[in-house]
Amino acid sequence: MSDTEATVQDALDRGLFVTFEGGDGSGKSTQAALLERWLVDGGHTVMRTREPGGTEFGVEVREIVLHSRGFITPRAEALLYAADRAQHIATKVRPALHRGEIVIQDRYIDSSVAYQGSGRVLGADDIRSLSEWATENLVPDLTVLIDLDEKAARARLDSDHKRFDRLEAEENDFHQRVRQAFLDIAAADPERFVVVDGTLSPDEIATQVQARLEPLLRRD
Amino acid sequence: MSDTEATVQDALDRGLFVTFEGGDGSGKSTQAALLERWLVDGGHTVMRTREPGGTEFGVEVREIVLHSRGFITPRAEALLYAADRAQHIATKVRPALHRGEIVIQDRYIDSSVAYQGSGRVLGADDIRSLSEWATENLVPDLTVLIDLDEKAARARLDSDHKRFDRLEAEENDFHQRVRQAFLDIAAADPERFVVVDGTLSPDEIATQVQARLEPLLRRD
Repeated sequence: MSDTEATVQDALDRGLFVTFEGGDGSGKSTQAALLERWLVDGGHTVMRTREPGGTEFGVEVREIVLHSRGFITPRAEALLYAADRAQHIATKVRPALHRGEIVIQDRYIDSSVAYQGSGRVLGADDIRSLSEWATENLVPDLTVLIDLDEKAARARLDSDHKRFDRLEAEENDFHQRVRQAFLDIAAADPERFVVVDGTLSPDEIATQVQARLEPLLRRD
Repeated sequence: MSDTEATVQDALDRGLFVTFEGGDGSGKSTQAALLERWLVDGGHTVMRTREPGGTEFGVEVREIVLHSRGFITPRAEALLYAADRAQHIATKVRPALHRGEIVIQDRYIDSSVAYQGSGRVLGADDIRSLSEWATENLVPDLTVLIDLDEKAARARLDSDHKRFDRLEAEENDFHQRVRQAFLDIAAADPERFVVVDGTLSPDEIATQVQARLEPLLRRD
């Protein structure tokens, strides 16, 4: 690590936790990669991660959720995701934050609330409580919601020739409910959220995200 | 099903849920088998089950908990057990109870509270809440606690040449804390619990369990 890098890192009393949320096909992964590059270029140490699957344990859990032959009840599924989250936050994310790193995570609690809570039969409050217990209440410093309507997201996924997994194959109105759930969550917590228009170009979106993150990098 | 059996089953407006609790080596499985035989001889339809591992899903979850190569955090482990429980209760136990059957289950919520809550670092109240959410608050009609001190249980396991798994290999004082936790839970809920002395003979224990269950079989 160069002296410049060390100085930048030391300016953060602890790391920053940035999460990306939105539907499948909204461009979350592209934006997470662009943000990582921008931060690394600026001298920061970054850890990019995701759920489920961010740990070896998570890979095993993800395997059960996505490829189990039998029907999984909504509560069992929610608890599995929470288990993956507990393990991931405790063993990967918190240690990185304690080292002063910037953690960029693809999907977090808001996805669980939007997909499991509002999209399905379980209550959003219950799902949020479960994740808060799992993570000992680790709240992101910034959450980027990339908002994109169902038709545009679907078109993008189709053009990528992406294999649809179990979640992606759900009905369209499910996706519409999820989209609205994300927007409601963001509206209720404007301090934490930046909502960007997913139909903009990747560079335009990246610029908006950087502008919102910049003040957090300069705190002391 | 004979006419006699049908009559006996019809006397139960819904099934009965009986759980066995206690440390490893306390004789739970032997007693569950003896109770099953006694009930079947009396014309009842019985489903004997256990957690974790009562469903195909549970087998996969159990595999992760017992044989994962990495360290699993206490919260992640508790959530995995809760996921197995949610799936097992919703897909196996509740359907059997709705059919009017008697479900005999080896370990349930009290084990989680005793092992995860009091034995380790997590709070007993949190662990109980988690299981209550997972099961939509399914409470046993009767819980049999087979109480046996650590030395007697250990001697019994050794003489069986049983392979010790990860839980069984834990320290002795952990088992002592678990035993006390079970006794405290039972003392707080005497209506639901019968506590039997695990040093008695299997037949003596079985007689005590039957005596306690008999009034529940005659309700209408």
